[in-house]
Amino acid sequence: MKAKTRFSALRLFRQLAFLAAAAAAFAACGDGASWIWYPGDYALWRGNDLQARRIEFGGGYPVFWASYAAHPLVDFTKSVDLKAPETVDIAWEGVCRIMGHGAMPGVVSNRFVFPAGKYTITARVYSQGRPPALYLNGPTIKTDSSWRADWRVAASGLGGIPAPPAETRPAFDAPSKRPAVCVLETRPAEPAATKTIRGNHLFADFGRETFGFLKLLGVSGKGKVRIVYGESEPEALCEDPAGPDQWELLDVEPGETFRAPVARGWRYVHVIPQEGVSVRAVAMDEQLCPLARAGAFRCSDPLVNRIWDVSARTLELTTREIFIEGVKRDRWTWSGDARQSYLMSYYLFGSQDLCKDSLFYQRGGDPLVMHINQIMDYTFYWFMSVREYHQYTGDRLFLEQVFDRMVSLMDFTISRLDSNGRPHNAYNDWMFIDWAPQPLHNVGGVTSFEQMLLVEALEALADVADTIGRPGADAWRTRAKKLRSEIVPLFWNAEKGALMHLLKDDGTLDAQLTRYPNMFGLSWGYFDAAQRDSVLKNVIFNDSVMKIQTPYMRFYELEALCTLGLQRKVMDEIRSYWGGMLNEGATSFWELYNPDEKGPLKYAMYGRPFGKSLCHAWGASPLYLLGRYYLGVSPTKPGFEEYAVRPDLGGLEWMEGSVPTPNGAIRVSVRNGAATATGPAKGRGVLVWHGKSLPIAPGETVTIR
Amino acid sequence: MKAKTRFSALRLFRQLAFLAAAAAAFAACGDGASWIWYPGDYALWRGNDLQARRIEFGGGYPVFWASYAAHPLVDFTKSVDLKAPETVDIAWEGVCRIMGHGAMPGVVSNRFVFPAGKYTITARVYSQGRPPALYLNGPTIKTDSSWRADWRVAASGLGGIPAPPAETRPAFDAPSKRPAVCVLETRPAEPAATKTIRGNHLFADFGRETFGFLKLLGVSGKGKVRIVYGESEPEALCEDPAGPDQWELLDVEPGETFRAPVARGWRYVHVIPQEGVSVRAVAMDEQLCPLARAGAFRCSDPLVNRIWDVSARTLELTTREIFIEGVKRDRWTWSGDARQSYLMSYYLFGSQDLCKDSLFYQRGGDPLVMHINQIMDYTFYWFMSVREYHQYTGDRLFLEQVFDRMVSLMDFTISRLDSNGRPHNAYNDWMFIDWAPQPLHNVGGVTSFEQMLLVEALEALADVADTIGRPGADAWRTRAKKLRSEIVPLFWNAEKGALMHLLKDDGTLDAQLTRYPNMFGLSWGYFDAAQRDSVLKNVIFNDSVMKIQTPYMRFYELEALCTLGLQRKVMDEIRSYWGGMLNEGATSFWELYNPDEKGPLKYAMYGRPFGKSLCHAWGASPLYLLGRYYLGVSPTKPGFEEYAVRPDLGGLEWMEGSVPTPNGAIRVSVRNGAATATGPAKGRGVLVWHGKSLPIAPGETVTIR
Repeated sequence: MKAKTRFSALRLFRQLAFLAAAAAAFAACGDGASWIWYPGDYALWRGNDLQARRIEFGGGYPVFWASYAAHPLVDFTKSVDLKAPETVDIAWEGVCRIMGHGAMPGVVSNRFVFPAGKYTITARVYSQGRPPALYLNGPTIKTDSSWRADWRVAASGLGGIPAPPAETRPAFDAPSKRPAVCVLETRPAEPAATKTIRGNHLFADFGRETFGFLKLLGVSGKGKVRIVYGESEPEALCEDPAGPDQWELLDVEPGETFRAPVARGWRYVHVIPQEGVSVRAVAMDEQLCPLARAGAFRCSDPLVNRIWDVSARTLELTTREIFIEGVKRDRWTWSGDARQSYLMSYYLFGSQDLCKDSLFYQRGGDPLVMHINQIMDYTFYWFMSVREYHQYTGDRLFLEQVFDRMVSLMDFTISRLDSNGRPHNAYNDWMFIDWAPQPLHNVGGVTSFEQMLLVEALEALADVADTIGRPGADAWRTRAKKLRSEIVPLFWNAEKGALMHLLKDDGTLDAQLTRYPNMFGLSWGYFDAAQRDSVLKNVIFNDSVMKIQTPYMRFYELEALCTLGLQRKVMDEIRSYWGGMLNEGATSFWELYNPDEKGPLKYAMYGRPFGKSLCHAWGASPLYLLGRYYLGVSPTKPGFEEYAVRPDLGGLEWMEGSVPTPNGAIRVSVRNGAATATGPAKGRGVLVWHGKSLPIAPGETVTIR
Repeated sequence: MKAKTRFSALRLFRQLAFLAAAAAAFAACGDGASWIWYPGDYALWRGNDLQARRIEFGGGYPVFWASYAAHPLVDFTKSVDLKAPETVDIAWEGVCRIMGHGAMPGVVSNRFVFPAGKYTITARVYSQGRPPALYLNGPTIKTDSSWRADWRVAASGLGGIPAPPAETRPAFDAPSKRPAVCVLETRPAEPAATKTIRGNHLFADFGRETFGFLKLLGVSGKGKVRIVYGESEPEALCEDPAGPDQWELLDVEPGETFRAPVARGWRYVHVIPQEGVSVRAVAMDEQLCPLARAGAFRCSDPLVNRIWDVSARTLELTTREIFIEGVKRDRWTWSGDARQSYLMSYYLFGSQDLCKDSLFYQRGGDPLVMHINQIMDYTFYWFMSVREYHQYTGDRLFLEQVFDRMVSLMDFTISRLDSNGRPHNAYNDWMFIDWAPQPLHNVGGVTSFEQMLLVEALEALADVADTIGRPGADAWRTRAKKLRSEIVPLFWNAEKGALMHLLKDDGTLDAQLTRYPNMFGLSWGYFDAAQRDSVLKNVIFNDSVMKIQTPYMRFYELEALCTLGLQRKVMDEIRSYWGGMLNEGATSFWELYNPDEKGPLKYAMYGRPFGKSLCHAWGASPLYLLGRYYLGVSPTKPGFEEYAVRPDLGGLEWMEGSVPTPNGAIRVSVRNGAATATGPAKGRGVLVWHGKSLPIAPGETVTIR
């Protein structure tokens, strides 16, 4: 077993070296021309359609947050100084006019000649239905992110807010490679087993959670076939239309292959031919994750390795056109869930554009009328996610593209604070916090949890402003500092030795004690040493305080413990909590897991027998925890320009793995008391092990024994 | 000649009676179900595409104002109290989910059953590309304007701004009659004459200005055909690509009929087959005005009748999916031009939905970054147009639908006023005022013209707020009152005896004297008797003051004179100015007319030899002037609930005509010293003639001798 693991780890390392080389080549492509568009427009367009694919009770189920369309008219501008006329290839989406130097001809073919001279090119592009986009490729004129995109076209007197850099994508690097074309790839797959039940029903087990288009093979007769999809066997066996939410009634005709029109998530499929129809077998076109694995983790404990593998599968299944929360139920993009997907993705996929697309989609457009996903804390996580995206990818351009939208979202947030500058509930904004068996006081006062998240959001925005040299940071920092300084005095209960959950409107603390503010307080340094010990004893290690049942909040709870160096304790929790799901037969991780719920109850949620999602992105947090706090890899400057490797075995005998960076993987191996790290092609690291530290030069391998 | 005129007037009256009956039937259709959508979404969607059809220099030419897409997600809501379950026909654009009473089933077919009970139905519809829309038709549940539409979906804490009533349209009254389908009808037409010139060229004269799709008949050979369109003969004869802006290079193949892909405006067509191709003949599919004539005017002067006819043709040609400014050049919708189209349309077409669509398109969406069409005064005219639309149509629902957008546009306007609350030029906003041979001070101070228009805009908004019982009117009225009271003191020059054009930044009056502020000052009662006489003498009847050359501003100049009872003078002006264009061969009226420009110069504008539009909506103002100030018909309460008929022959021997109202036409006839008026089916009028007045009861005919 050990030898085999070792072998596969080696193979993994070889794959990673290849991927690093591929990533470098990928970056080089970026020197040429790309289609360009207004930043976020394609993310909105694709994201809107993706969300609209939710189907429930057999019918469509659009989102319940305000949605925004792409801009129909955009100016793309760039200053040039041409010594001679220049002929460029040109392609555009919709209608295009080019202005620049004197009277310019109309765009009538896929070649366009720019006259010599020093001037600013403006390409005005109109498109409705698909977002406006432009491609120019000439000897020196090439559409890329040095162009600016402005939906305000020729507006004047806007207080000097500059137009953002246009968005680009290396894959859209030829006239024919239009950004409007983006279809996830599929590959044919077969069930692990199929049996006939209840007379003429087919019941197929695909062996593990999957996502794609179901295919019916060998259809005879013309009529209807009812399909029930299940993440669990009982769900797929349930024929009550009010039971599983993923079922459909298909109209079929005789033929060898009939493919269902909508991709869905399932492990089991129950095919119920109606009168006059029979089906020979089922198969599927599995719709693939658009990203390749670039990170790895292997260790001495096979259970932990299985947890890592199933986590990776979970994240891959929930990684589609943009990140979604789960493959069965809503397939929507939720900002709080997505923050965790991003953090996991940095350790599994590395730097990539889907984070950006998801962030753009979530932010939507203007004017703002609600928090992201209608949830106050989801707005706050979004700010944190933008800062983290930059830290992990070094993509400063995105900050420039999204900054104005950060400011307007913070303006909206501030407009809804109370007279003390605190997030509150007077507007009936949803405060999600967590799915918990007791109410978390969505109404009735000011929660410590939301205050702490707003502090982070304000600081994230101020950091971004400073990074790209835009004004406003001081005011956001002052506000954050004030709010932060108030939290412990306001919410600390000396008797309980912990932060309380809620300050009621009458100015007294509610009796409710929860883990949430206390674990964030640990992670974010709110406590002095005595308070920290008190919180650990009275809350975190106190079984009488309501336990967290979602992997979502377990992510933050375990992160808090890791920041205190309690990796051994956390490893036990990983083994028991995620291992517990594996014991229940999980092939992907769940939306919620309560070890005490057995039998049919374990699949129930939202008052429905199979309401629980069994493949939920936030279930995959071991990907992050193991990479960040065991391999111990983190960027200390944006884009891993500088980074730290602080391995912690947490009681494992050995471990090894790699963490992708924009310039290749950082490889880490810890065994026999020695820690070894290999640096990527760029970036300067430091390896810290047992109190010693060594610098890691680009491409270098260092070991501390 | 006279007998013939009389006959056709009689025939017209018969037609009008039919139209009145048809209008009543049309209103009855409105009691059933209509597709519904967020107010203005289809206008935006159609308007965007219409504007994008401009072609210049052979290539596309999008607008230069910020453009807005329709909302992709809309909630449609309605409260019901069903005694029994109700089955309804349902159709929707995109994805639809219905919520209401407990767990509702998904929408899976074109039948939907609503359970019994008292509850609010919410239909959430998502669509991208085409705007979301919904159709429900059951025994009591019917989508109509009693439904509300909200793009903010379930947003909370928005300060109580209610969702607007959904938009409806009588024509979209069945599941198959989707609002997304709207194609103007065409009918085949032939040229009046075709000749062969320059070897193998065809040169066709369609006899008068027209609009539609050119057809090439009897095409032999495969290759290219160059088409030059001309509103004048010299324009069509010009083969220089930099000359006429309407030309195209078509790829043809052998066949009987080849239709050009884009509809254009022209009178003459020049067909230039390239090598290897020949064309036997040309024809066209004329694209028709979507509205029928409902008003009429005939009088003793054949020239004036011809002016009315050509004005009607001009407005019909520029009435497409929404109102456009001209058929040749930009085919865009300009708010200042459109205000005149609306006013003319009330006298030619009567109450109809295209005004609403145009107003919605012009207003666009939010956030605002510029004035309508980038022009400050075009924003001001828009406010006036909304109030006038209500006055002529009585469509209060539109006010409720558009009110929030009026408020946000006024907020934007106010945010750009100077510290004295005056429109100024610090933001470099375009002040159009007029096309004139001398600059009208787009920069350099505060113009009296813009101040006066803002007063009207503020008052229009306040009136609308009062009409529909929404708050804010007092503040707008106070602002208007202050501004109004300042204008004469600030701009009056005692020496010149007139309002001056510009107050410079240094606080002194510029020497420029123009007709514009003075004629508005006359129309809007800014002057005492002495000032009025002074303005008439020193400006209006002073030939040394720059004359107005556009029908656009002549509209207002002549209206000012009519408000002073100077109809005889105005009739002379109509005969000489519009008659002058007819003498130049006009078959539709022009963008600009200067009697002194002869030869090639008369077609030139914008520094281009054929830059002038010869079919320009604002050329048609006699439609309005004759209906409003000669037939003398105007609504005195919204929707002609009350109206006045104050005929003025203005020196004509006799006249007769009709003015459409929402409830049928008002017919007026003046001859032999007697004035006769017939009232429509609803509404109470008053006929005023030679100092006497008589009430007009519904359907009654009264005569004052």
